[in-house]
Amino acid sequence: MIDFSLPPELAELQARVRDFIAHEIIPMEADPRQGPHGPELALREDLIERARRAGLLSPHASAEYGGMGLSHAGRAIAFEEAGYSLLGPVAMNVFAPDEGNMHLLEAVATPAQKERWLRPLAEGHIRSCFCMTEPSPGAGSDPSMLQTTATPDGEGWRIDGLKWFITGADGAGMAIIMARVPDSGATMFLSRMDAPGITVERSMETLDRCFPGGHGVVRFDGLRVGAGDVLGELGQGFQYAQVRLSPARLTHCMRWLGAARRAHDIAVDYARHRQAFGKLIGQHEGVGFALADNEMDLHIARLAIWHCAWTLDQGGLALRESSRAKVIVSEALWRVVDRSVQVLGGQGVTGETLVARIFADMRGFRIYDGPSEVHRWSLAKHILRGAAVENRA
Amino acid sequence: MIDFSLPPELAELQARVRDFIAHEIIPMEADPRQGPHGPELALREDLIERARRAGLLSPHASAEYGGMGLSHAGRAIAFEEAGYSLLGPVAMNVFAPDEGNMHLLEAVATPAQKERWLRPLAEGHIRSCFCMTEPSPGAGSDPSMLQTTATPDGEGWRIDGLKWFITGADGAGMAIIMARVPDSGATMFLSRMDAPGITVERSMETLDRCFPGGHGVVRFDGLRVGAGDVLGELGQGFQYAQVRLSPARLTHCMRWLGAARRAHDIAVDYARHRQAFGKLIGQHEGVGFALADNEMDLHIARLAIWHCAWTLDQGGLALRESSRAKVIVSEALWRVVDRSVQVLGGQGVTGETLVARIFADMRGFRIYDGPSEVHRWSLAKHILRGAAVENRA
Amino acid sequence: MIDFSLPPELAELQARVRDFIAHEIIPMEADPRQGPHGPELALREDLIERARRAGLLSPHASAEYGGMGLSHAGRAIAFEEAGYSLLGPVAMNVFAPDEGNMHLLEAVATPAQKERWLRPLAEGHIRSCFCMTEPSPGAGSDPSMLQTTATPDGEGWRIDGLKWFITGADGAGMAIIMARVPDSGATMFLSRMDAPGITVERSMETLDRCFPGGHGVVRFDGLRVGAGDVLGELGQGFQYAQVRLSPARLTHCMRWLGAARRAHDIAVDYARHRQAFGKLIGQHEGVGFALADNEMDLHIARLAIWHCAWTLDQGGLALRESSRAKVIVSEALWRVVDRSVQVLGGQGVTGETLVARIFADMRGFRIYDGPSEVHRWSLAKHILRGAAVENRA
Amino acid sequence: MIDFSLPPELAELQARVRDFIAHEIIPMEADPRQGPHGPELALREDLIERARRAGLLSPHASAEYGGMGLSHAGRAIAFEEAGYSLLGPVAMNVFAPDEGNMHLLEAVATPAQKERWLRPLAEGHIRSCFCMTEPSPGAGSDPSMLQTTATPDGEGWRIDGLKWFITGADGAGMAIIMARVPDSGATMFLSRMDAPGITVERSMETLDRCFPGGHGVVRFDGLRVGAGDVLGELGQGFQYAQVRLSPARLTHCMRWLGAARRAHDIAVDYARHRQAFGKLIGQHEGVGFALADNEMDLHIARLAIWHCAWTLDQGGLALRESSRAKVIVSEALWRVVDRSVQVLGGQGVTGETLVARIFADMRGFRIYDGPSEVHRWSLAKHILRGAAVENRA
Repeated sequence: MIDFSLPPELAELQARVRDFIAHEIIPMEADPRQGPHGPELALREDLIERARRAGLLSPHASAEYGGMGLSHAGRAIAFEEAGYSLLGPVAMNVFAPDEGNMHLLEAVATPAQKERWLRPLAEGHIRSCFCMTEPSPGAGSDPSMLQTTATPDGEGWRIDGLKWFITGADGAGMAIIMARVPDSGATMFLSRMDAPGITVERSMETLDRCFPGGHGVVRFDGLRVGAGDVLGELGQGFQYAQVRLSPARLTHCMRWLGAARRAHDIAVDYARHRQAFGKLIGQHEGVGFALADNEMDLHIARLAIWHCAWTLDQGGLALRESSRAKVIVSEALWRVVDRSVQVLGGQGVTGETLVARIFADMRGFRIYDGPSEVHRWSLAKHILRGAAVENRA
Repeated sequence: MIDFSLPPELAELQARVRDFIAHEIIPMEADPRQGPHGPELALREDLIERARRAGLLSPHASAEYGGMGLSHAGRAIAFEEAGYSLLGPVAMNVFAPDEGNMHLLEAVATPAQKERWLRPLAEGHIRSCFCMTEPSPGAGSDPSMLQTTATPDGEGWRIDGLKWFITGADGAGMAIIMARVPDSGATMFLSRMDAPGITVERSMETLDRCFPGGHGVVRFDGLRVGAGDVLGELGQGFQYAQVRLSPARLTHCMRWLGAARRAHDIAVDYARHRQAFGKLIGQHEGVGFALADNEMDLHIARLAIWHCAWTLDQGGLALRESSRAKVIVSEALWRVVDRSVQVLGGQGVTGETLVARIFADMRGFRIYDGPSEVHRWSLAKHILRGAAVENRA
Repeated sequence: MIDFSLPPELAELQARVRDFIAHEIIPMEADPRQGPHGPELALREDLIERARRAGLLSPHASAEYGGMGLSHAGRAIAFEEAGYSLLGPVAMNVFAPDEGNMHLLEAVATPAQKERWLRPLAEGHIRSCFCMTEPSPGAGSDPSMLQTTATPDGEGWRIDGLKWFITGADGAGMAIIMARVPDSGATMFLSRMDAPGITVERSMETLDRCFPGGHGVVRFDGLRVGAGDVLGELGQGFQYAQVRLSPARLTHCMRWLGAARRAHDIAVDYARHRQAFGKLIGQHEGVGFALADNEMDLHIARLAIWHCAWTLDQGGLALRESSRAKVIVSEALWRVVDRSVQVLGGQGVTGETLVARIFADMRGFRIYDGPSEVHRWSLAKHILRGAAVENRA
Repeated sequence: MIDFSLPPELAELQARVRDFIAHEIIPMEADPRQGPHGPELALREDLIERARRAGLLSPHASAEYGGMGLSHAGRAIAFEEAGYSLLGPVAMNVFAPDEGNMHLLEAVATPAQKERWLRPLAEGHIRSCFCMTEPSPGAGSDPSMLQTTATPDGEGWRIDGLKWFITGADGAGMAIIMARVPDSGATMFLSRMDAPGITVERSMETLDRCFPGGHGVVRFDGLRVGAGDVLGELGQGFQYAQVRLSPARLTHCMRWLGAARRAHDIAVDYARHRQAFGKLIGQHEGVGFALADNEMDLHIARLAIWHCAWTLDQGGLALRESSRAKVIVSEALWRVVDRSVQVLGGQGVTGETLVARIFADMRGFRIYDGPSEVHRWSLAKHILRGAAVENRA
C-alpha cells in the first residue's frame, strides 16, 4: 500500500524532536567544551541530561531498556531531526557507534551481558566502541583480512592485535572486539575498556570533530576476557557484523540527512538576504539552481532511507538495499553540503556559519561503513548473479 | 504510514501487465509497420486489439468510459510495465498526449463533450493532440507568450495561429487547442482535426520514433469552432493546463522508467555473456559499477515517481512535487540509458539491440513538458519564497 | 618553448579550410543524396571534386601522393575546420577509416603496394576499410581474441572469418584485414573488396549517418590473397595496429571537435535570439552557464589534441597520451553536444537544426577506437607500473 | 608554433625547484610551528632562509628587486613545483596575496613606493595584505558594492570601513586598501599595517590553514594616509584590480596544481601497496579509474594554465582566458583531491597523510578570486556579446 504519510505517533515524535533540537540543543552548539575529537565528557553529560528530561534518550532502545522501541522507519524520522544539530545525536544517545552497538547487543547478547552493558549504554552512563578495522595488512574494506587473534587461555581468551579508526575509543567504557579464533574464525568479544592489555595509543587527527572520543588507535596486548565475554557464538563474528551492518549504515544516513538539511537551510537563508549584481543572490539562477538541486538531493536521500528502513522493518538483512541506500544517500548529501558551501561564497569555508563544519565532518561518510566503491562492487555482484530487479521499488 | 508494498490488486495488475507486454507486445517490436513518425495505423490497431482482448486498454480511464479508474499510484505500476516495450503504451492506450488529454477531459469537459470525444479516445478508436506550443516568438517554455488567437465569430470562434511540436497531430481525430481570447485570455477549445482551417503542414524530423503521428507543425487558418467547443470556461486555459500538467509529466516518467529498465536489462544480459581481457565484461568494475549505478538510478526514479503519484492521490496540483520528480527521473533515466549504451560497446549505437532506439527516443524527455532548467528555476522560486521544506519526504 | 601560436602557413591553411567549408561544403548539407549509411557515391564525388579544385584534398598525405604532408599539429588545425561540417571530412578525404589507412600504408607498405592502393586512395578515387573487429567471441575491445584465420595456401593465403563494425565496407575498393597466421600470429593483409570470398552481408543500423559506406558485417569465406599482399611482416599485425592507433584516435578527436564547435555555435545563435520569461534565453544563467561550460570544454579538448599531436610530432607511439586525449576529448565534446541540444529546447531533438544529427552521429565516439573504460584501464596500468607523471604537461 | 617543450633554462629551473622542495621543504612539513592561521613567523623565516640560500626566493620579481623576472610561463613551471609542498610557496615567497601584490606594485607603484614596499616584500622581510572584500552589504563577488570610503583630509586621506577575508592580515607589514573616493571612485592606497586606525579585529576560522596570517577582519577607523600613498591614480582602483586579477588567479592555479599532484602521488603510492579482496587496490578498476581520471584532470589543468600564462605573456589582461582557466583548473583539481581522499579510504580523512590537509586547504579555491558561478556568468556575457570563439585554442 504505497504510502508516504507518517502515522500520528511518528508525526508527533518528529515534531517533538524538532522542537527539542531547536530549543535545547542548537543553543548549545557554541559551547566551547568541544575539541578535535568531539564533545567533551561534561558537555556530553549536559546534553544527555536535556534529552533525558525531554523523554528523548535512546528512543531506538527497547522499552525494557528505557527506549521507545522505534522501528527502523521510526528511527528514520527521529534521527533525521536529531542530526539537524551535530550535537543532537550525542544528546539523544543515537550516535555511532553506540547506537549500532546497542542494536547488536539487543539482537545477540545474553541477558547477563545485556544487564551489564546494554543497560548503562541505553541509559547514557557509558559509551562504547566497536573494534573491527585494522591497519594494513589487516582488515579494512575487506574484513576477511582480519589479523587480531583470540587464543584460548584457561577458561577464557587472550586477545592480541592492533585496531584503528576505532570511533569513540577514548573515554569508552566497553568494547566489542572482533578477533580470529583458531579453528572457529572471526568471533566477537566484549570487554571493559579499562582492562589491562587495552591501550588507546592515540587519537587520530581527522577532518570530522563530531564523534565523542574521536577515532582511536587501540592496541590489544594480552587482553584477557572470560568465557562469558563471547558475544553470541564462536566463529559467527562476520554473521553478527551483518546483523549490525545494514541498520548501522542506515542510521548514519538518517543523521547526516539532518545535517545536510541544516547546511541547505543556512544556504537558503543566505541566498534570501545577500545581494550581488543588482539582485538577491538566490535570484541568480547559478545559485537558485544549486538550491533546487539541494532540494532534489535531500528528497531522494530521504526516500532511499525510508525505503530501506521499511525493508528492514519487514525483516531480513537488507544487505543489497542498504548498500544501495548508503551510496545514494552519502553521495547525494555530499553534493548538498558542497553546494551549500559554494552558495555561501567565502563564508562557506569559514566558521561564520556551521556549514564548513558540516562539510568537514561529512567527508568521511562516503568512506565509513564501506566506501562507495565497495558497495558498487557488491551491487554489481548481485546484479551479475542474476538476482531479479526488485518489484518493491 | 510509510509503506512501499503494493496492495494485492496492484500486485496482480503489475504481474498481468508484465506478462502481457512480454508475451503479446515484445514479439511485435520487429513488426515493420513503424517509421520515423511512430507506429503506423494498422500496427496500432493490432496492438490495441491485443490490449482490448487482455482487458488492459485505457486502464487509467474511469470505469464509466471502460477503464479501471486507476489512482496515480496504480498508474505508476501499470505504466512502468507498459513502458518496458516502446510499443506497450500505444497498445494500452496510455501514450502521450492521449493519456493526458483523457485525464483533462474527465476533469473539465461537459457530458456532451465527453460522449463525443472521451469515449472514442478511451475505447481506442481515435487519437488526439494537444495544441499549445508555438514557434518563436510564441509560446514555448514560457506559455505566457501565446500568439494564437480565438476571435468571436457569430455564435462561435475563429482560430488563427501556428503551432509546432504537436505530438500525434498526423492522424489525430481531435485536437485541444490553446488560443488567446480577447479580454478573457488563454482558453482551450476542442475541434475535430479534419475541419477546414486545420492543416498539418509537415511532420518534424525527430530523434524519437515512438509517438504515433510524430510531431507536427499545425496551422490554424480561420478554423471555426462552435460555442459548445470551449473546454471549460473562457480565460481558464492556463489553469486547466495545470490540471493536466503534473499528471502528464508524471506519466511520462512512468513510461520511460519501464523503457530504461529494459535498456538496463539488455546491458546486464550482455555483461553476463561477453568476454574481454580474460573475464566476463560484467566482472570488470568499469562495467559492473555502471550496472550498479543503473540499479540505483532506477531505484530513485521509481521512488520519486511513487512519491509524486501518492501526493497527487491526496489531491492538489503537486506542481512543485511534479517539477522535482520530472527532473530527478528524466536525468536519472537518461544516465541509465547512456550507461547501457556504453556497456554494450559498439553494439550500443546500433540496431543490434533496442538500446540505441531507446537512447534516441528518450533524449527529448529532459526537454518535453518543461526542460530541466525551467523546473529548476521554478523550484528555486518556491524555495526562495520560503515555502517550508516538506515533511512528507 | 611553450607556445600556442600557429606558424603563418598553418594560420593560412586554417583560414583557407574554414572558408572552403563555409562556402563550398555547408551549402551541400541539404543535398538529399545521403542516407542511413552516409553520403552516397555521387554526392561524395561532388564533394571531393570541390576539395580537389580548392587544393585541399588529402592534405595529410605526403607530397609524393598529392598531399601537403601535414604534421600531426597541422592535421589538428585542418581537420577541426573540416569537421565543422559533417560533410567536410568526406570532401577533404580525411574521414575514417581512410585517413588512418593512408597513414598506415605510408608507414608500412611496399612501394608497389603504395602505388596500387595508396595513390588511388589519396587521390580520392577509391575508399577503403579496416577489418579488425569481430563479433563475440572474437576481437572487440580486446584484440587478442582475434578469430579470423589466414592459412597458407600455395604461394599465398586463404582467409576465413567474420568481421563487423567495418566502417566504410559497403562501396570500398580495398580492405586491410587482420587475421591470425599459424605460428606467426596476427598479421595484416591487403585485398581488393570485389575479390571472390568477400561478402558484405549487411550494413548495420547505427545512430551515426556520417560515414560513407556505413558499418558493415563482412564475411571472409576462402578469400585468396597473394604473397605480396601481406602488409609489412608476418605476426606484426598488432604492432602495426599501434602505428595506426594513436594517430587514428586523434584525428577522430580533431574532426569531432569541429562538429561540436558547430553545435555550440548553433546553440549560441539560438540563445542570442529566442526570448523566454522576459529576456533572451542566453541571459538566463541556466542557459548562459551551459554555453560557458561548452566554451571551456571546447578549449580543453583543443588543448588536449594539440598536446598529443605535438607529442606524436616528436616521434614515438604516444599510446598513453592518445588514450588520455581520446577520453578527455570524447567526453568533453559529448558534454558540449548534449548541452547544445538542451539549450535549443524542443528544437534540439529535431531536424530543425543540425544539432540533433551531430548528437546522434557523435555518441559512438566514446566507444569507437576503444571505449573510455578500456583507456582508463590502460592509463591505470601505466600509473601503477610507476611510470613517472610526465613533465611535458 | 604549437610547442609544449620547456626551454633549457626553464627545464633547469623546474628540476632545481623540484629538488629544493623535495629535500629542503618537505622535511619541514612536520614542523609544529603551524596553526589554524598558517605557518608561524619563526617557521616562515626558516623557510625563507632556505629559499634565499638556494637562490629561489621571489623568482617572479624583477631582477632589480632580486628576482628572476620570470615570465608567466616561467611562473607556471616554478610555482607548480613550489606548490608540491604546502610550505613551498611560503618558502619561495610566491604565496597569496604577496605574490600578486608584488606584481601590482611593479606595474603601478612609483619608484619611491617600490623602494619602500616592494623591496622588503621581494626580499622576504615583510608580508602584505590586499584589502578589498567587505562583509554584506559591501563588496564581495560584486566589487561595485564597495562601501569603504577615503575622505580628503588635509593633504592626505582618511579611510573608514570594514573588510574581511583579508588574507595575511595578521602579521602583515603593509596593506593595499581599496576605498571609494568622492567624485573619483574606487582608488587604491598603501599603508603600513601598524598605523593608528587599523585594527585586525580577529582571524576568521577557515578550513584552510596554509596562508601565513590567516584571513582577518580588518577595521579602518580614521586611518590617515598621505598624498604619496595613493597607488597609481585616483578612481583607477578597479582598473588596477584587473591588472592584478588575471595573474593572481592564475598563480593560485599553479600552486594548487602542485598540491593536487602531491595528493595524487600519495594516493598512487597507497594504491600500489595496500591489498584488498585478493589484489592491490590499484588493480581494482574502481580505484585505477580514479587514478586515471586524476592524471587526466592534472593534465587539463596544466594545459589550461600554460595556455593562459602564454596569453598573458603576449600582453593584455586575459580576463576571459583567466576566468576560463580559473574554473577549469579549480574544478579539475578539486576532483583530483576528492578522489585522492577516496582512494585512501579511511586514511583519506585523517592526518595519516597530507591529503586531508590539502583537501581542507583547497576547498576555498573554487570560491576565492571569484566563485565558479561568477566566472561562468562573465564567460556567458562574452559569448552572448558575440565575441568570436578564439582561434588560439
